Amino acid sequence: MNLHQLMRDLNENNGSKIVLVVADGLGGLPLEPGGRTELETAKKPNLDAMVREGVCGLSIPVLPGITPGSGPGHLGLFGYDPLEYKIGRGILEALGINFQVGPRDVAVRGNFCTVNAEGLITDRRAGRPSTDRCVEMCKKMQSIKVPGVEVFVEPVREHRFVVVFRGDHLGDLVNDTDPQALNVPPLFAVGEDANSQNTAKAINTFVVEAGKLLKNDAPTNMVTLRGFARYPKIATMQNIYGLKAACIAVYPMYKGLARLVGMDILDAGATLSEQIDTLKKAWDSYDFFFLHYKYTDSTGEDGNFDGKVAKIEALDMELPRIRALNPDVLLVTGDHSTPAKMRSHSWHPVPTVLCAKNARPDGAVAFGESFCLRGGLGQVEAKYLMSLAMAHAGRLGKYGA
Amino acid sequence: MNLHQLMRDLNENNGSKIVLVVADGLGGLPLEPGGRTELETAKKPNLDAMVREGVCGLSIPVLPGITPGSGPGHLGLFGYDPLEYKIGRGILEALGINFQVGPRDVAVRGNFCTVNAEGLITDRRAGRPSTDRCVEMCKKMQSIKVPGVEVFVEPVREHRFVVVFRGDHLGDLVNDTDPQALNVPPLFAVGEDANSQNTAKAINTFVVEAGKLLKNDAPTNMVTLRGFARYPKIATMQNIYGLKAACIAVYPMYKGLARLVGMDILDAGATLSEQIDTLKKAWDSYDFFFLHYKYTDSTGEDGNFDGKVAKIEALDMELPRIRALNPDVLLVTGDHSTPAKMRSHSWHPVPTVLCAKNARPDGAVAFGESFCLRGGLGQVEAKYLMSLAMAHAGRLGKYGA
Repeated sequence: MNLHQLMRDLNENNGSKIVLVVADGLGGLPLEPGGRTELETAKKPNLDAMVREGVCGLSIPVLPGITPGSGPGHLGLFGYDPLEYKIGRGILEALGINFQVGPRDVAVRGNFCTVNAEGLITDRRAGRPSTDRCVEMCKKMQSIKVPGVEVFVEPVREHRFVVVFRGDHLGDLVNDTDPQALNVPPLFAVGEDANSQNTAKAINTFVVEAGKLLKNDAPTNMVTLRGFARYPKIATMQNIYGLKAACIAVYPMYKGLARLVGMDILDAGATLSEQIDTLKKAWDSYDFFFLHYKYTDSTGEDGNFDGKVAKIEALDMELPRIRALNPDVLLVTGDHSTPAKMRSHSWHPVPTVLCAKNARPDGAVAFGESFCLRGGLGQVEAKYLMSLAMAHAGRLGKYGA
Repeated sequence: MNLHQLMRDLNENNGSKIVLVVADGLGGLPLEPGGRTELETAKKPNLDAMVREGVCGLSIPVLPGITPGSGPGHLGLFGYDPLEYKIGRGILEALGINFQVGPRDVAVRGNFCTVNAEGLITDRRAGRPSTDRCVEMCKKMQSIKVPGVEVFVEPVREHRFVVVFRGDHLGDLVNDTDPQALNVPPLFAVGEDANSQNTAKAINTFVVEAGKLLKNDAPTNMVTLRGFARYPKIATMQNIYGLKAACIAVYPMYKGLARLVGMDILDAGATLSEQIDTLKKAWDSYDFFFLHYKYTDSTGEDGNFDGKVAKIEALDMELPRIRALNPDVLLVTGDHSTPAKMRSHSWHPVPTVLCAKNARPDGAVAFGESFCLRGGLGQVEAKYLMSLAMAHAGRLGKYGA
C-alpha cells in the first residue's frame, strides 16, 4: 500500500488546524571550522521555545546526497514523493510567472536565439536581450495562430519566455528544438506517440510563424523550445488527507506548486506580516495552511550569511502572531538547505520543528542543525512530515485492528 | 526513478577526487559490559581528526539485522543495492581466485567428495584433502573435454575448486549436484530453461568424465558442483557516476568485486604502504579510488580483539599519506562489522566518516561506534554512501528545477 492510500484510509476530520511554515533554504553550514550555522547564529527565542515544547529533527528532502530544486523540495513537504511526482521544466516555468496551467495544457520553456541568413544559430541566448525587449517580442508572437490549438506566449525575463499549447490530445513526449549547439539550425519537433505528434505539429507550425514574424528583429530573430511538459496528474491534498488547504505565498512559483496539489491560493500581500494577516483572516475557512517565506533562500543564494541570519530573526519575530492562533500543529522547516557558504541549494538535511500537544519531548533546547540532529523526529524523509503532522493533529486513525 | 538513473541524470564531472577506504569488518563490540569496541580502544589520532573535521555516522550494509558476505557488503558501498544485485556463489568463488570471469561464463563451486563402489557419497568433503592434493586433482581434471563448451578447472583450497563453463547460450538455472546427504549418489544436473539445459548437459558430461579420471584417487574420487552462476550484468561506475574508478586491493576477491563494477584493477603490492604508493602514482589518472584493507576483518574472524585494535592503529598511521594527496572526499568505512567477540561477520552498523569541504559538522570528536551513532550521517544504508560522496565532491547537480 502506498503512503497516499494509507492517508486516504486513515484520515479523520477532527476540526484541528495545521500550519506548515516553509522557510525556504533554511538549513546551512558554518563558515569556519568550529563555527555556527546561520540558524545557530540567529537570535530566535520563539523558534527555540518551539523546540523546547515540541519535537525536532532533520528533514531529508529527497534522498541522502540529493539536492532538490524548489519543485521537488516542496512536493516532498506536501507529502508527495519527489521521485515519483515529477514536474516538468515547462510547467515549473509557467508556474513561476503565475500562468494558470490546466489539464489540457502542454507548457514549454522558450528561448530567443539569433540565426544567420542560412537559418543557423549564432547565439543560443540572442545576446541576452533586456526583459523589455523580451516582453515586446512575446507580444508580437501572441498573434501567432496554430490550427486546432490555443497558444499562449508570456515573457519570463531576458531571453526566456513561456509558451503554453492548450487543446485535446496533446502529449509531451517531444524533443527539445534547441540543438544545444551553434552553426546548426533549430531542430524539428518530433512526437514519440500519436498525442505527442499533435503537439509536435503545433510546435513546428508555431516556430515557422515565429521565424517569419521576427525575421527583421535580430538578434532576437528566432526561438527554440524545450522542456515540454503536461500538467501532472496529482491527487489533491483534500483527496489524500481530507484537508481543506490554503497557500499563503508571495512568489508565483510557490503558489503554482501549491495549486498543483489543490490548495486555494490566498492573497498574501508582499510581506511576512501581511501573510500572517491573511492567515488570521482565513483561519476559520481552512484546515491546513502553507506559509512560504522566501528570504532565507535568497540570502543564502547570495552568499550573505549575516543577511540570512537577519531573515531568520525576522521570521522568528513574527512567529508569536502565528502561535497566538493556537494551531494544533505548527511545523517549521525548509524545502532544502541553502548554505550561504555554498551560495546554492544543497543536499544537507533541513532543521525541522513540530509543536503539538502530544509531541514527545526530546531534550533539544534550541533550533539549530546540531540539536535537530539529535531530535525526536530523527533524520526523516520530507515526504513523511505530512503524516507526522496529521498524526500530531489527531487526524489519523489506527492502522489495522 | 531508481537511484542509478538519478545518478546518471545528475552527475557532473568537476575533476574532483573521491577516495573510499574500506577497512573490512571495521565495526565491533566490547568484550565486556561497559567496555570499548576495537575501534574505540585503538589509538588513532588521524581517524579522530577526520571525525572532528568531517561528518560521521553508521552504515547499514543491507537492512537492519542483515549480516552480509563480502559480495553484498562491497556492492552496497559501491552504491549497488545488495538486494537487487546478486552475485552467485560460483562467480564469487571464481573472483576469489582471480579467475577473470566474463559474460559467456557460468562459474561453479566444486567440492571433492568420496564415493564407495556403488557410487554413493561417503564423505562430502573427501576427508578435507590438502591443498596440494586439490591442486594435483584439478590438474588432472583440466584434461576433461566437453563438446561445444570450454571448461576451466582451478583449485581453491582443501576440497574446494572452481569450474567455469564458457560458451554461448549457457544458463545458470541448474540444481546443485551436491545432494547434501550421505549414502546417496551425486544428483544429476537438470536445467530449468533451454539455455540452462545446455549447461546441465555440459555439467553431467564433466562429472561423468571426472568420475572416470579420479576413480582410483579415493578419497578424492568424485566431485559435486553447486552455486552455478552467470556473470551478472551490472552497469559500471563510469556509466552510473561518470567516475573513472580504480581498485587498490591486495586480495583477489575484492579485485574481482571491483572489476564487476568496471573499476580498473591497479597493481597494489602486498602492504598498505605499497597500496598507498600505488594510489599516489595513479592519482592523476582516476576520479575514484577504492582502497581495500583486509586485516580488520581477518583479526576479527580470528577472535583476536587486540590484533584488530593493532590493525586499526596500523591503518591510522598510514592515513596522513592519503590525506596529503588532498582528496576532495575521503570516506573511511567498512563493508560490515566483524566483532572479535563474535569471530564472524555481523549485522551491526559500521562506523563511517566522510571528510570534505562542505561536510556539515556534527560535534563528534573521535572515530568509534558511540560517536558515529550520534553523527551527522545518521544511520544510513550503505547504498547511499556513494550519493553522499558524490554530493560532497560537488559532482551532483540539482534534482528538478
